[in-house]
Amino acid sequence: MDNDIKKRSLELHLKHKGKISVESKIRIENSDDLSLAYSPGVAEPCLHIKDNKDDIYKYTSKGNMVAVITDGSAVLGLGNIGAEASLPVMEGKAILFKEFAGVDAFPICLKTQDTEEIINIIKNISVSFGGINLEDISSPKCVTIERRLKEELDIPVFHDDQHGTAIVSTAALINACRLTGKKLEDLEVVLVGTGAAGSSIARILKDIGIKHVYGVNIDGVVLKEKYDSYSFVLKELIDENILTIPNNLKEDSLKELMKNKDVFIGVSTKDIVSKEMIKSMNKDPFIFAMANPDPEISPKEALEAGAYIIGTGRSDYPNQINNVLAFPGIFRGALDSRAKKITDSMKLSAAKAIAYLLEDSELSREYIIPSPFDKRVSKAVSEEVMKEVKSKTK
Amino acid sequence: MDNDIKKRSLELHLKHKGKISVESKIRIENSDDLSLAYSPGVAEPCLHIKDNKDDIYKYTSKGNMVAVITDGSAVLGLGNIGAEASLPVMEGKAILFKEFAGVDAFPICLKTQDTEEIINIIKNISVSFGGINLEDISSPKCVTIERRLKEELDIPVFHDDQHGTAIVSTAALINACRLTGKKLEDLEVVLVGTGAAGSSIARILKDIGIKHVYGVNIDGVVLKEKYDSYSFVLKELIDENILTIPNNLKEDSLKELMKNKDVFIGVSTKDIVSKEMIKSMNKDPFIFAMANPDPEISPKEALEAGAYIIGTGRSDYPNQINNVLAFPGIFRGALDSRAKKITDSMKLSAAKAIAYLLEDSELSREYIIPSPFDKRVSKAVSEEVMKEVKSKTK
Repeated sequence: MDNDIKKRSLELHLKHKGKISVESKIRIENSDDLSLAYSPGVAEPCLHIKDNKDDIYKYTSKGNMVAVITDGSAVLGLGNIGAEASLPVMEGKAILFKEFAGVDAFPICLKTQDTEEIINIIKNISVSFGGINLEDISSPKCVTIERRLKEELDIPVFHDDQHGTAIVSTAALINACRLTGKKLEDLEVVLVGTGAAGSSIARILKDIGIKHVYGVNIDGVVLKEKYDSYSFVLKELIDENILTIPNNLKEDSLKELMKNKDVFIGVSTKDIVSKEMIKSMNKDPFIFAMANPDPEISPKEALEAGAYIIGTGRSDYPNQINNVLAFPGIFRGALDSRAKKITDSMKLSAAKAIAYLLEDSELSREYIIPSPFDKRVSKAVSEEVMKEVKSKTK
Repeated sequence: MDNDIKKRSLELHLKHKGKISVESKIRIENSDDLSLAYSPGVAEPCLHIKDNKDDIYKYTSKGNMVAVITDGSAVLGLGNIGAEASLPVMEGKAILFKEFAGVDAFPICLKTQDTEEIINIIKNISVSFGGINLEDISSPKCVTIERRLKEELDIPVFHDDQHGTAIVSTAALINACRLTGKKLEDLEVVLVGTGAAGSSIARILKDIGIKHVYGVNIDGVVLKEKYDSYSFVLKELIDENILTIPNNLKEDSLKELMKNKDVFIGVSTKDIVSKEMIKSMNKDPFIFAMANPDPEISPKEALEAGAYIIGTGRSDYPNQINNVLAFPGIFRGALDSRAKKITDSMKLSAAKAIAYLLEDSELSREYIIPSPFDKRVSKAVSEEVMKEVKSKTK
């Protein structure tokens, strides 16, 4: 990160003392105002909710309010920096919800990093919220927390680090196929990183019909003989045949695995891919090198080695895979349709909505995915998510 | 409550879908904005806070953010209506913080009503907040929760139901003395209600120098022989000589106790005081009949019986004892002075600030306490609270 951004960001945060405020929707200027908004008038909506809990959506802010919750254990590439240090990120996420989709969102940073305690606290504070966005919680704990809350709460729960990148990179992949005429079902994909984001990417790629997704993590290629050493998240990807285990691999290496594949998707770490490895892939490969802040291979090198389409997590290169394309619209749609869960098919609807926002004629090697500042995105995503919810509740 | 207020309050809540929104202090319109407010720039304030936790006050909204927390167990005279039904009240409290003192406040309604679990949850979510306002939690649990949090957290914790009425009625009592020339230390006070609010009233009255405060609760006059049946809160008031135990009382009754007393303070229930009882008091008694929504005796009857000053909790009579005179300014002062606790002397400072806002010449039998809409109040309270904090940290 250049020093200018560091300095200016620090100044911006200092100047405003953080990024969020809580505002009143009504004014209290005389005793009539006070009687209606507070005592004695407020008793009336209270009693309605007491008699019918669902009325909480009519008379309070719950229906448009999302909690952005972290334990500070895996924050923004900075690692386990703790609850206090994570607050600027959670406030940032909250304002993105508001700016991109009009969703009120409030940051909650938890002092505990214990899985069961986190689940219990979120369940107990969930009353005021219409949805829960989990953020920057370490893997595989984050998977357990999200699953349990999805089971035990009746409001949408979404862990953006798992699903956000998965949805947006899937949208990019759909459009890479539209542009090149390649078929999704024919693509052979190498996925590096099998943690929170990687596991969700693998699942959604299988959902859109890709037959072969091979996995690589810090212990090398994902292979059956290492099964016992894997986290439960990775074990499930093998058990459910989400990941394909390569046959006859001459060597347990990323280099060997990448030969004759069509797509590289990285959510891992910088500089693990060489030009030679890209040259060994099938013709015109798609490279989504999304390690932050530095990608698995620089876009310049990937291009020189023959990559046809390159996506990264960075705003200073074309085709930025930015989660903000997905989560605001997904929650907007989930809240507006009063969905109780965010399902796999809602995520797929979101990916397609992002992809098909661009006309065929707009697509190019450097414009595979809409800009985060394209105001149409969150609306398109929310509409498709709502359609999906409605189709399932008919 | 008249039907018109009920109907209009319900409509107001429905129209706005609750009363609060979360707003962004900055706009996100291009990738530079995004880089500064979110990734990658936001890492910089995070790292500063990681290295120095106190920097959270510089770079986040924590320093102006109060949590309004309830378990829904004793809501606004409606009783144990549960977490969901309490949300309109907590949102109401949040907007009063904002409207009267510019404090951002966010409502948190807890599903659990277990004392230890409530304490644990509040400790764990306290990171994002500069202060905790407990609200509508049943007694004596509320006292335990407030005390433990005061010990275990380093941010101000305040239970308004305990201390708000105590502070404002003390202000009214100070001014009643200023108007009449009676001396605080000579007043003999009958206090009806010895729960959350009553116990705090007893303590602050002793703090300002009143020698004799006699207690009455649902079991009659507070007497040593009933000690074993009392809650720990009431036992402490006896053990610490906060309450005076009457000698030679001819009969265990409020009627008997009120004879020859100067002040009646009620935080109990309607219609327990008769004209005859007021006539039996010393000359020109002060009657603060604060039961809600109906006072212990109607102001009309109290006046007919010879009461000199009458205060109630209602806005449709003179001298409304309204908590909103106290809590916004107290938190404003506590936050601005970075107090770690709200102490008894800060509460006393607040009471005096409210009282002395009115000049001698302004005082009258019907104007003992400023209006809740007097814009000067929260400023005066916060300034006195800050002075008090500074005097203690010198």
